Formats: sequence, structure tokens, C-alpha cells
Amino acid sequence: MTGTAGARRRGRPPRTESADTRDRILAAAREVFSEHGYEKTSVRGIAKAAGVDAALVHHYFGTKEQIFEAAVAVAFAPALDAPEALAAGPLEEVGERLTRFVFGVWENPTTRTPLLAILRSAVNNETAAAVFRRLVSAQLLRRVAAQLDLPDAELRAELAAAQLVGAALMRYVIKLEPLASADLESIIRRVTPVVQGHLTQP
Amino acid sequence: MTGTAGARRRGRPPRTESADTRDRILAAAREVFSEHGYEKTSVRGIAKAAGVDAALVHHYFGTKEQIFEAAVAVAFAPALDAPEALAAGPLEEVGERLTRFVFGVWENPTTRTPLLAILRSAVNNETAAAVFRRLVSAQLLRRVAAQLDLPDAELRAELAAAQLVGAALMRYVIKLEPLASADLESIIRRVTPVVQGHLTQP
Repeated sequence: MTGTAGARRRGRPPRTESADTRDRILAAAREVFSEHGYEKTSVRGIAKAAGVDAALVHHYFGTKEQIFEAAVAVAFAPALDAPEALAAGPLEEVGERLTRFVFGVWENPTTRTPLLAILRSAVNNETAAAVFRRLVSAQLLRRVAAQLDLPDAELRAELAAAQLVGAALMRYVIKLEPLASADLESIIRRVTPVVQGHLTQP
Repeated sequence: MTGTAGARRRGRPPRTESADTRDRILAAAREVFSEHGYEKTSVRGIAKAAGVDAALVHHYFGTKEQIFEAAVAVAFAPALDAPEALAAGPLEEVGERLTRFVFGVWENPTTRTPLLAILRSAVNNETAAAVFRRLVSAQLLRRVAAQLDLPDAELRAELAAAQLVGAALMRYVIKLEPLASADLESIIRRVTPVVQGHLTQP
């Protein structure tokens, strides 16, 4: 990407092209991060996958950490709608709604792939873990906690999340049997009261 | 390690030297796997850290996967005593014993480091995940399950482990707040009934 195309991209591109390019870079970033994880991904690699100059990637997103955060935010977009969906119903059923939501995300390959990439990166790299903390904690768990209206609501939400993340990890990543092949409804039936208990039990 | 030392090691070394060398290789393997994870570790790298020839590493342990399994088995040795310890007490308290045991392992830096390396490797690599499955499932969880004497005991043990692994992951690896800084006893108090419930509740 040198010569005419590169030169044309110096300075701010016109508005519509700008949005297209930004989206293309973001899609490439999601793909490259998903495939190689945070540590092994370079801004240059993302630029190459998007067919643009590395400087343009920096121009739109800043550092590698900031690109990762933007890519993760896109992957988390459905999850960020969850707190509203979770609020739409009685508090006695919030455990089942959250459990079904989380397993729904993991059962669907389209949403599982980026989530798995985020989890892998967060387990392996402190910077990626910080991004995971900011997004999951600030955007997802705190919004779940806000609905509980209890002084220890955040800790409750985190322990409920721990049961769900642990079960997803063992079923979909480590593939421990019999959990990996167990009927989804039977897992949801067993996990729901735990999640509900963490969230609302006195 | 070529020349005299290398030549002296060809063929089977005498018995005591053999045990020493084997231990030295195993210690080096644990260290190198802990630091770099399964994927980035090579047999050559382990041999170099142990100060021996790569052929000798293969001679004692076989493939990289087999070395990993041997190293993980050593790291898991305290955990493998757990089922006996867990059996030493009433079944109504097995949840608390298992919870205290797992958090005890994670609170202690000496046992946390190899465990973290295993978890990281298992999340990132299918071969390492298979080793994790074999050891955790066959050696640890099935032995816990055997004490329950219930038809779904293995699934129960796995869901209890999911709560514990998820909580450890969020507290010690992702360091999500307030969970990461919460008083250990308060966490144990909240997690124990969940673990007990998974294991023994009708």
C-alpha cells in the first residue's frame, strides 16, 4: 500500500470513505486478533489484512491496545444489550435469563469465536486482561449489578459470572466430558439456581 | 552439550544419575512451560534449560506432549492427594473442603504458578487441553465423583469445578474487582454452598 493509493489516504479521507475504511480495519482486526490472539497480533498484520497502510490503522484507532478494545467492543455489542433484556422480567427469573443469554452466546459459533479470542487473550496477556476487565466489569456486570440494588451487588454479579464463565470454559474450550456433550437444557437447569442464588439470595 | 559429556550420556546412564537427570529435565520443563506456555516451548528449549542434549529429553519422556503431561502431573501432585483429603470428613462438608482446597492452591504462589501455566496452555492449545482433560477429569474429578455415589456424579463434580475455576480465573488471572481484592473468607463463604449444592443436592 504505497504509491498512489497510500498517498491518496494521507490526511483525512472524505467522510463516507472514512467510515468504510474504519469498518474494514475493524473487521480485519477482529479476524486477526481472533486467529492469533493479542500477543501475536501486530498493527502491521491488521493493516495488511485490511489492505491499508499501518499509519492509517494508527490514525483511526491509536495503539494496538486501543484497536483491541474497539474490536472487543464490537464483539461484545450483543452482550451489552443484555442488561436491558435482563431487566425485562421479574427479578426471580434474572438467573435464568442471564444463564440462557450466556449459553446462547457460546452455543452460536458466530458469537463464540470472538468471545473465545477475547478470553484467550485475557488469560495470556495483562493488557488484554485490562481491556476485558473494563468491558466486562464496567459495561456488563455493573449494569447487571445496578438492577439488584444491594450493597454487595457487584461481587454477587461477579460470582454469578464466575459460574457461567467456568462452565463455558469447561464445556466449550477444555471440552471436559460429560459436561461438553451434556444436553444444554440440563446444564441450564443446573446452573440457573446457582446464578439466581448468587444474584438475589439473602 | 556435545563432546565428552554428550558421549558419556549416550546409552542408558547408571541408575542414580538417571533419576537425577530425569528430575532435572522435569524441573526445567515445568519452568519453561510455565514461562512460555505449551505452544512456544520446544524440546530443544527444555534441554537447554536442563543443560542436556535434546535427544536425552526425548529418551526419558518421548514427545513434547508427553513431557508436558509429566510436568503437569508433578504440578498436580498436591491436587491428586485432594480426593483422599476430601474423603476425610462428612459428606455435608465436602463443598467446604473442596472450596478451601482449591483456593488454598491458588493463594499459594508456589502452586499457583504451574497451575496458571497449565490453564493458559489448555485455553490456547488443543493438545494441552487434552492433557488437562486427562489429568483433571480422570485423576481429580472422577475421584471426587466416586465419593458421591450418584449416577450424575461426574457432571456434578464438573459443575462444582466450573464455579471454582471460574472464580479463580476472575480473581487471580483477570483480576476483576471487587472479587480480586475481596476477603478470602467471604468468598469461601459464598462459594461453598454452591459447590456443596452441585455435589450433593437432590
